[in-house]
Amino acid sequence: MRAVTWDGARVRVVDDAVDPQPAPGEAVVRVRLAGICSTDLEILAGYLGFRGVPGHEFVGDVVTGPADLVGRRVVGEINFACRRCAACAAGRERHCPARSVLGIVGADGAFAERLRIPAANLHVVPEQWPDEHAVFVEPLAAATEASLQSAAFAGGRTLVVGAGKLGLLVAQVLAARGDRVAVVARRQRARSIAADLGLDAAPEDVAPGTWDLVVDATGDRRGLEVAIRAVRPLGAIVLKSTVAEPYAIDLAPLVIGEITLVGSRCGPFPPALAALGEGRVRVAPLLEETFPLAEAPAAFRRAAEPGALKVLLDPSP
Amino acid sequence: MRAVTWDGARVRVVDDAVDPQPAPGEAVVRVRLAGICSTDLEILAGYLGFRGVPGHEFVGDVVTGPADLVGRRVVGEINFACRRCAACAAGRERHCPARSVLGIVGADGAFAERLRIPAANLHVVPEQWPDEHAVFVEPLAAATEASLQSAAFAGGRTLVVGAGKLGLLVAQVLAARGDRVAVVARRQRARSIAADLGLDAAPEDVAPGTWDLVVDATGDRRGLEVAIRAVRPLGAIVLKSTVAEPYAIDLAPLVIGEITLVGSRCGPFPPALAALGEGRVRVAPLLEETFPLAEAPAAFRRAAEPGALKVLLDPSP
Repeated sequence: MRAVTWDGARVRVVDDAVDPQPAPGEAVVRVRLAGICSTDLEILAGYLGFRGVPGHEFVGDVVTGPADLVGRRVVGEINFACRRCAACAAGRERHCPARSVLGIVGADGAFAERLRIPAANLHVVPEQWPDEHAVFVEPLAAATEASLQSAAFAGGRTLVVGAGKLGLLVAQVLAARGDRVAVVARRQRARSIAADLGLDAAPEDVAPGTWDLVVDATGDRRGLEVAIRAVRPLGAIVLKSTVAEPYAIDLAPLVIGEITLVGSRCGPFPPALAALGEGRVRVAPLLEETFPLAEAPAAFRRAAEPGALKVLLDPSP
Repeated sequence: MRAVTWDGARVRVVDDAVDPQPAPGEAVVRVRLAGICSTDLEILAGYLGFRGVPGHEFVGDVVTGPADLVGRRVVGEINFACRRCAACAAGRERHCPARSVLGIVGADGAFAERLRIPAANLHVVPEQWPDEHAVFVEPLAAATEASLQSAAFAGGRTLVVGAGKLGLLVAQVLAARGDRVAVVARRQRARSIAADLGLDAAPEDVAPGTWDLVVDATGDRRGLEVAIRAVRPLGAIVLKSTVAEPYAIDLAPLVIGEITLVGSRCGPFPPALAALGEGRVRVAPLLEETFPLAEAPAAFRRAAEPGALKVLLDPSP
């Protein structure tokens, strides 16, 4: 089959990738669309040590698996837990230390014609949704996690720093639960989209110490610096940005202001499916461009351009 | 009166300090004992920009103030809120942006024969407590704050990094609520005291990712590094250490493990008074030495020695 492969040095599109062989409990999904995430770009920049087929955001059709799923259109949770260890027993499957992660850790991913995945990870997509919306469920789940982690601040004044594809999802989720949300966006285009989504804009040199909740979705170290300056005493920061290397930062304001900083990675699918189904979040404005899978290298370059929103890969021949 | 003064360059003991003149709503307290905290040593090292009489841990007798308090032995909360701003109206008096703080920000403190303080900040001490115990209420309140901020982790496996005077208070408070607490102590003496207090010891190279809750009470950057390594996914870190300058640290594990990091400064007095009154916390093993106020410079040197526990100043003639 056709797939994107990464060997640690080079990204290639091959036509002779080995077709996925499902183990017991697994399904094979024919990919309709796959989304490119910043994590994929980090992998292709040599971080994370992954080798194989990247890609973890997808919508597709089950071709092999449990009878009730075959032929259904699905999205899939990306953490494959062992379901045997203490973390899994404690309900922390997404943090199972023995997990593999679709297209990120030890499991071939979605930038391919077909992928294999535990059937328990799959969720059927409502028929009326276009593929271009369903493919957003995984990043929307990651955005929803920020809301679950900051439930005590619902309805407050919230600042989202970074108006990329993740930041604009987070901002919508938090606005939908009643927060008064403003977004720090560097680019005019992002500010326009934010306004179109009903979100206020805030300048990067925010009034210090005034926001109840700040979400850093910048993807770089600047975000946390802005967040620490912006948040009020006893407020909270949700940190979405993973910065690959240590960097110097002054954490004393967290202690003096008794700020809560919570790291946020990925989230559960059901709240994301509900938010999309009930129209609480709009994803169409976040679509950048769709490339055929064969043109994946060009798609990655496009996704890496500053300000680029969601770039999709289409594996159909 | 006699008092310690700090002018930004030099610490002196003077005998002609101006006697405190109480404003309406304030009381004057004759200090019986004052405790030396790491924050005082930071002030005397030139940090924080404070000028005047340092000292914020005290027990003393009310000599001027409301009739029901005059003659009573008291301890006092150190944040003097404006009670007019939005933060105060929202119940965040300890974080009032216009506050002064006894011996730390804009208010002369406890290293003196007498101090002035809002009467509302005072708490009467039970008669049977020795002064040497009552003087621990303020740092014990700061330790109690770590418990209030981590209520969701009560009863779990907790690691306290740093076995100084604050760490040993925090560890006792968390053990008293049912946590299975271990303490990382560098010195044999601290390990002995911890054992005497019924606390387990843990090595500094802790098993990574295994503790539900980790409290950093080291006072230096090493503590947060150990904490990030020690805490399990979805666990929490309470950060007690203020490090005066930015430093390089890798925060990516917080995001990947969805760890909560909460800064912790000072806490409410009533739970600390209750813990001490009910014998849930023992402070006698944390006493180092008491110096006359006139020998304050020697007391500061003693308090600054590695491994020193609580050094007290006695202003009685």
